[in-house]
Parts: sequence; structure tokens; C-alpha cells
Amino acid sequence: MLGLMQDWRLTLDKILSYAAREHPDTAVIDRSVTQSQVCDYRSLEREARRFTKALLRHNVVAGDRVATLLWNDTAHLAAWYGTMGMGAVLHTLNPRLHVDQIGWIANHAKDRMLVADARFLDIVEVIVAAAPGIETIVLVGGGAGLLKCGRPAISFDAFLASGDEGAPQWGEFSEESAAGLCYTSGTTGDPKGVLYSHRSNFLHAFAANQPNAFGIREGETVLPIVPMFHANAWGLTFMAPMAGASLVLPGSRLDGPSLAGAINEQGVTIAAGVPTVCMGLLDHLRATGSRPECLKRLIIGGAAVTPDLVEGFERDLGVEVIHAWGMTELSPVGCISKKPVNENRRLVDLGRAARLRQGSPIFPLETRIQDETGAPVPHDDRTPGHLAVKGPFVTKTYFAGTSEVIDAEGFFDTGDIAVRDQHGSIRIVDRAKDIIKSGGEWISALEIETLASALPGVAAAAVIGVPDVKWGERPMLVVEPKADAILEAEAILAGLDGQIPKWWMPERIEFRTIPLGATGKIDKKTLRTMMAAEG
Amino acid sequence: MLGLMQDWRLTLDKILSYAAREHPDTAVIDRSVTQSQVCDYRSLEREARRFTKALLRHNVVAGDRVATLLWNDTAHLAAWYGTMGMGAVLHTLNPRLHVDQIGWIANHAKDRMLVADARFLDIVEVIVAAAPGIETIVLVGGGAGLLKCGRPAISFDAFLASGDEGAPQWGEFSEESAAGLCYTSGTTGDPKGVLYSHRSNFLHAFAANQPNAFGIREGETVLPIVPMFHANAWGLTFMAPMAGASLVLPGSRLDGPSLAGAINEQGVTIAAGVPTVCMGLLDHLRATGSRPECLKRLIIGGAAVTPDLVEGFERDLGVEVIHAWGMTELSPVGCISKKPVNENRRLVDLGRAARLRQGSPIFPLETRIQDETGAPVPHDDRTPGHLAVKGPFVTKTYFAGTSEVIDAEGFFDTGDIAVRDQHGSIRIVDRAKDIIKSGGEWISALEIETLASALPGVAAAAVIGVPDVKWGERPMLVVEPKADAILEAEAILAGLDGQIPKWWMPERIEFRTIPLGATGKIDKKTLRTMMAAEG
Repeated sequence: MLGLMQDWRLTLDKILSYAAREHPDTAVIDRSVTQSQVCDYRSLEREARRFTKALLRHNVVAGDRVATLLWNDTAHLAAWYGTMGMGAVLHTLNPRLHVDQIGWIANHAKDRMLVADARFLDIVEVIVAAAPGIETIVLVGGGAGLLKCGRPAISFDAFLASGDEGAPQWGEFSEESAAGLCYTSGTTGDPKGVLYSHRSNFLHAFAANQPNAFGIREGETVLPIVPMFHANAWGLTFMAPMAGASLVLPGSRLDGPSLAGAINEQGVTIAAGVPTVCMGLLDHLRATGSRPECLKRLIIGGAAVTPDLVEGFERDLGVEVIHAWGMTELSPVGCISKKPVNENRRLVDLGRAARLRQGSPIFPLETRIQDETGAPVPHDDRTPGHLAVKGPFVTKTYFAGTSEVIDAEGFFDTGDIAVRDQHGSIRIVDRAKDIIKSGGEWISALEIETLASALPGVAAAAVIGVPDVKWGERPMLVVEPKADAILEAEAILAGLDGQIPKWWMPERIEFRTIPLGATGKIDKKTLRTMMAAEG
Repeated sequence: MLGLMQDWRLTLDKILSYAAREHPDTAVIDRSVTQSQVCDYRSLEREARRFTKALLRHNVVAGDRVATLLWNDTAHLAAWYGTMGMGAVLHTLNPRLHVDQIGWIANHAKDRMLVADARFLDIVEVIVAAAPGIETIVLVGGGAGLLKCGRPAISFDAFLASGDEGAPQWGEFSEESAAGLCYTSGTTGDPKGVLYSHRSNFLHAFAANQPNAFGIREGETVLPIVPMFHANAWGLTFMAPMAGASLVLPGSRLDGPSLAGAINEQGVTIAAGVPTVCMGLLDHLRATGSRPECLKRLIIGGAAVTPDLVEGFERDLGVEVIHAWGMTELSPVGCISKKPVNENRRLVDLGRAARLRQGSPIFPLETRIQDETGAPVPHDDRTPGHLAVKGPFVTKTYFAGTSEVIDAEGFFDTGDIAVRDQHGSIRIVDRAKDIIKSGGEWISALEIETLASALPGVAAAAVIGVPDVKWGERPMLVVEPKADAILEAEAILAGLDGQIPKWWMPERIEFRTIPLGATGKIDKKTLRTMMAAEG
């Protein structure tokens, strides 16, 4: 027997339409240019609908991929909703990746159109050469003209003007339809595309905006520092209009002074970014002795928070830190660790260390930590296992993938190694591919790196496994000294002594510059090749 | 092109399973008996699964209706999840309705089983006689035995014991499957059954627990004073486990002292009830001079809040009032009016009067206020129209109904007459069937009643339309004086003068006892018959 409730599909156009209907005057502020531009949800919806009309005029049909190479600005937001609204697929390209990789991705996705920031013209040339499927090139912040390759580019304004007035049809397709495409940068192998559906993004916004997670309300002002090309800006460009909250879009201006200006001038109440960018903001606030007056909460994700970040914002500035863990394949929010709401015994018992953990899975995600045979490990906070997840906004298979990436019970292996305590709080100890297997036990490269990075004179630290006849693998520590610092292996070992098990102590320590990948993370693949070549 | 995310169905069993997995030790407190009984989500899930096993043993299959005649207690909660988990339909019966109506409803629903509080034995006898489809009768708080009609009844404990150990299959059916059935009491015509699906209840819990609405978090303790037979306790028995919040179940003890005891002894942070019950709590707190120490928020719905309730709780006791409007057909939350989170100009402008309005539709509900031709009326806060709604948790058709109750565009007419201001806040001015049409214009019976009820010596007031040759209809005001009060029509008219338009002034005033329906609302149908008979 089926229920008798309305057949109302979860399509993303309804989020912006709701905001335009119920919160028409709520501001959307674009700070990508020197002079802030202010619009509201009423006019944003109008612009997004006009974008749809222009897409139709340029022969884009439902299912086609429309690529963007843009920062967080209103043009990106109009393209976002205008593309998804008609059932085409918004494919966010990450300008921080290697240019050849961006071209490879655009071609793999079979993008039919590219909307790019005019400042990325050099990247655009490479993309267009690599992805012959791109028929239309639109430049934001630049005039029309010919690319070096001879192909014409149209300005964003001219493109919009090509769409006639009148509301195009939005929605009216299956909620399972593809809405967005985002490739993971992956330090191993080729990038992989995650193809979000309208339903998965809609449910993710519902789930990640629950009070246990982001908890955004009407009357708030949201600053997504995290780019829209970084896993949908963690869903914030869906949650803000859903909640009727104001949006502040920072463009490319992500340095401390610019962010502090955006926060104080626009009355931002909640912001979200990766640790390095948040550290830049904190450094600026410390250096100038200024306070972010309206800012109540800061979501930090993409990498683990440090004690300094939590204390700097919470204790010194009164800004609550919401520590979020996730990944592109999870849409992206998986776990949240935040301050408890009440004097609940369990939560107080957990103490401050709990804030540095990845925390509890948001409803309704199912998580499992399992050994290599697939059996669950004990929840004793000591036994590490592979973290697997299941839920309505978790990847089933990659774009153009030949097989599903879920197991027989529907779980997706995150590639992370984690422990879980008796209260359900998860702590990630390492990436599965980085963990070192020594004598049948696991050594967490990440934990040694975190400790070594904090030692005096250390700019960066990386641990990789090197083959060992007796133990299978042993850890090697590579240290990059700070400028002018003179480091000795003995001092490093002394610094680690007593903080990790004896058998975790690095077998070898080497000093050299550590290679970084496109997203600023340590490139262990290159490092392993380097060290193997040196022998 | 379809997205490539996991096929994870929105079924309600997953809510309790999530709570049992992530918040196993969070308390569920049953205060239906003198000595509070405490269990937790881990043991509640175990009991609910055992209930499923017992259902299967008693030949209940997916789609069958399992009726409950119970207050809010753990037995009800176990039956709730145990029934829905296996795909059977939990049909909540309202013991406050007239006993013949309850019997009619149980028969109309073709209930196959009845789980009832032993204190309702008299009602059970009538139901069993009226609904021959009921095969199994289970009594909570009573032993096994024979009913007067000779049918055997089994105790809840014995019923549970008949289910063997081991986890039964939960979920694994379409998310569109029916989960719950609730009849509207309707003062006109036969009661109508709303058949909720797993998907609609799941999405309603997601929507109504957003920070703009109920906003329940982990660490909180929730007291649903509103019964589970009153539109799913407004979704709270889904939201609390979803958020990992504690639940306090008050049983039938809904008087002021009992509620104050529950709040203070269990540390309740958020409670929810209808205005009369909340007024009882406020009266008790005022009389004893006590304060509800932990209580932060009180959701009041089912009827409009009064200024006294809002001021009594917010100003005097520091408890935020969340004013909720909804109806059974909406699962039930439709609109919310609550204190703004920030110093937002728009929200402050609205001022305190805004709290008495029904407020804004929760995301993603679509609302429309239309005239009798279906055309939208202006959003000027003056032009009334029929309030229609559309969304994923709104009724499409009634149980065993022969036709859909939505219009060509998918909107359901709520039967309420409302105005809307330019900010989207809705104010309900009357029920469509109560509004008086005079000279082609509408007179709100509700507004006159609200004003008249507040006059000195008035216990209750009701306004009905009486036929008029010139105007079509004119308002007649029926006043029930307080005990010992002596009222004169002139004083009543003087009290209304200047507060309503001249042409709204009642044509006639009558003094007598006003008939009430089963749910305590004024029974205008009977009143109209009474007054017509008197001429």
C-alpha cells in the first residue's frame, strides 16, 4: 500500500524559487570586485532563469555538461542554478589543479560549454584545445573576442542578453537526474568524477543544515570562503537560500585582510573554509588586534583543525568552530564535531580533545569501520579500520566508471583509516594508501607527521613506508626545515620520543623540500618516487 | 542523464536505527506511570523490533493497519516503529473523539489489530464491535482476559513475548509505502484519513527540524505534550531520535503540575503543545512562582497563540515561544513564527505583533492565497483569500477517497482564509466555512470572536452568519458569560466599537452556553442548528 501524499520532486530549482518567493529582498553580495555588488534572491532567480534561456538558445539540452572555471561570485551562482534548473549538469572545474589535468577533466566530462573567469584565459586556451566538445566559451569579466586558437569567446553579459525574457521551464524531470559534476583531484591515478543528482544535493542540504551540523537560519549572513568548485562549497549555496540567509561571495579575495573586511562590512555570522585559509584570517585578526564582531560560527573542513585554530577562534575571539569532515564523494559532509548545546554529561566528559576529532556522522549517514576482511572492528578508540559510508548522498559509481564502487551491502570505502570511540565519535588516523604496515600492525603516517610538523624549525613533515626485509615496511620521515633552521635527526627523534609507540619511531630521517600537489596537500606519490630513486 | 549517487530509500526505520547506532545511551523517559521508567534508544529499537516479530507472528503483513489508542508512552513508541519498520501502517486513534466516531474510523480504516491503553476498555468494546476486521486486541497496562463481548485480549507484555528474538527485516520497501494513518476530526462531514508515506514523514522531519523551525539538537531533551495521535506529535517522535535528543513521554498527565514536574525533573529543554495545555502550565507556574529552569523553547500549535501566552513565557519566564501553524494534511507543520536570530532590519520592523501571526511557510512548502476563481490575491496583508499549499508532505487524496483533493497545479486547499504581507508572513483570518459573506465582502468571524472573548465577563464567543435579505449574510454573535457575570448587548457592542469595521458589527447578540466539539473547539455546526431552530 502506497501513501497518499503529493508527488513533489526534490529538484534544486525549487531551492532558489523558494528563496525568491519567501525571501525576495534578502541580499546576495558579490565582493569579487573592488566595489561590492548587491543583488537579492528575487533578482538572482531572474538572472538564473535568463541564463537557462541563453543555454537553450545555444542548443544546450538536459544532461549536457556546462563547465565553470569561476570563483564564488554571482555569475557563478546564476550559471549554477540556471544550468541545474533546466536539467543540464553544472561541472565545476578547479583552477588550482595543473592546467593539463583541468584539460583532461574537461575532455573526460565531455563538456559542451565553458563559463570562465577572464583572468583564467591561459587555462581556457588549454581546456579548449584538450576538450573538443566545447562549443561555446563565455568569459566573465571580459569582453568578447578571439582566443589565440582562433575560437570566439562571448562575454557573460552578451551571453545572458541572448536569452530572451520569460520564465523557462524549471524542474519537471526526475529527481534522480544529474545536477552537478565534480572531479576529485586524487594524488593517485586519474581524477574521478562524482555525478550528483538533484535528489542527493537536496537531501544533503537538508541533512547538513540540521542543527547538529551547520544550522543556518533566516537572519544570518553566510560567507562561503570554500569555493563552489570544492565539492559544491560544502552545500552552502543550497543551504543559504533554503534558510533565507544572506550570501556573501568573496570571489578570489581569500587573504586574511579581505576576509576580515568581508566579515565586518557585511555582518557575516557564519563562514566556512579550509584550515590554511582560516589560519590566514586568524593571523590577520591577531596581527591587527581586531575582532570579527558579528561572526558567531566558523565551519572548518577539508583537513583536520589544529588546537591553535580552535583556541584562537573560540577562546580568544568567541567564534564557535564547527569541525567538519567530508569528501567529494559524500556531497561532501560526513562527520561533524562541535560544541555541545547543553550541559550533557556525555558531551562534557568528552572534553576539548573531542573538538579535534572528526566527530559523529550526520543523520542519516551510516558508517562502518572494518578490517580488511570486511568485519567491523571494536569501538574502543584504539583499533583502526577502513571507514566505509552509506547514504542518500554518497557516490555509487564514478562518472563514466565501469563498475560500482560500493560493496555488497552498499557501503563506499572512503579510503580513510579511522577509529571510533564508544560514543560514536570518529577519529581519522590516516589515509589507507599512506598507512604503513609494519610487522602486521599499522603505523599512522599522519600522526607522526602531525607531531613532527609541530617541532621547532620544521616547516613540513611527511612520512612514507620503505620496504624492510624483517618488518615488511618501516616508516621514513622526510622533514623540510624552515628557512635558516639547522636541524639534526637526533633532535627530531628526541622530539617524538614518548609521544608515539617505540616501534613507530622513524627508521630514517631525511631533510629536503617536500613536493606539494595542486590542492596544497603533500604529494606522496612524487615523494615516494623521489626517495626510491635516491635509494 | 541520471546522477550516480546511492539508492538509499527514505524509510522511517532508519531514524530509530540511526539513534540506536549513534546515540544508544540517550534516554527515553516514560512518565505515564507514577514511577518514571527510563530506557534508551538502544533498548527502544530492540523492543520495536520485537514488536515487529510479534506482528509477523500474528499474521500482520505489510500494508495492514495496526490501530493504537494510546497516550505518549514507550509502548506507543515501540508499536510505532515496530509497525512502520515492517511496512505495516500505524493508525493512531484519538480517544478524545466521540466513541461512535472512533468506532466508525476504525472500521473505515479496516484496522486489523488494536493496541489500546487498558484504561480505555469501554472505548475498546465499542471499537471492536464497530470494526469487525480487528483480529488481535492488545492491552497496555492491563492483563489478558476476555472483553464483555467475549473476545480475548492479550497484554502488551505477552504480545511482545510472542515475538522471538533476532532482528526482523526492516525497510527494504518503496519509500512511497504507507507508514501512518491519521483521521481529521472535521466538524463537518465524516472524518477523513490522511495516509502518510515513509518518504513524506521523513522529509517532514527534515524540514520541520531545520533551524528556522523546531531546530532540535543533540544534548536537548524533548517533551512532546502534543499526543502522537494528534498528527504524529507534530513529527517530534521522528525528530528527537534523528537529532539524538532525549525524549520525555508524559502519558496522560498533561495538567500544569505534572508538566512542570516533568520539565524540571527531566531537564526538558524544548516542549510542544496546544495553547490550552500550555496555558495550564503557565497558570501553574504563575500560581506557584516556580520557573522551568532548563526549558529554552516551547512550540505552541494547533490553534493561534494569545499575547498572554507569548508574554507569559517569553518576558516573564525567558522561554522562547515558537508559534507553529499546520494541519493533519500537512504532516502537520506548515508555517512558523519565531523570534529572529539576529538584528535583521526586516524582522525587527515586524515587531511583536508578528509573533501572533502564523508566519512563513517552512522550506520547501509552496503556498498560494487565491480568490474564488483561483487567481492569486495581492500580498498587501489586507486582501483575504483561500490558503492553498503544495509540497512533499501534503495530502494528495484521502484514504479510500474517490478523487484527488488537489487542483490542476497540485495545490491543496487548506480550508483557511488568510492574508499575506509583503514579507511573506501569513495571517489566518478564518476558516473558509466560518467566514461571513456580507454584501460581496468577507467578514472574519474569528476576528470578532477573538475580540469579544477578551471582553470582561465573557467566557467564550462565537460568530455565525445568519441569512439577510439585503446583504446575503450578517454576523450574529453568541456569547457565553462567565459564571456570575451579567452581560448586556450594549456593553459588548461598545467593547467592539472602533476595533472592527462598522459594517462588521454583529447584527444580533445572543447569550447562551456554546457547544464544543470533541477536540475542545467550538462546534459551529451544532450552534448553527441550535440558532436556526430558535429562529
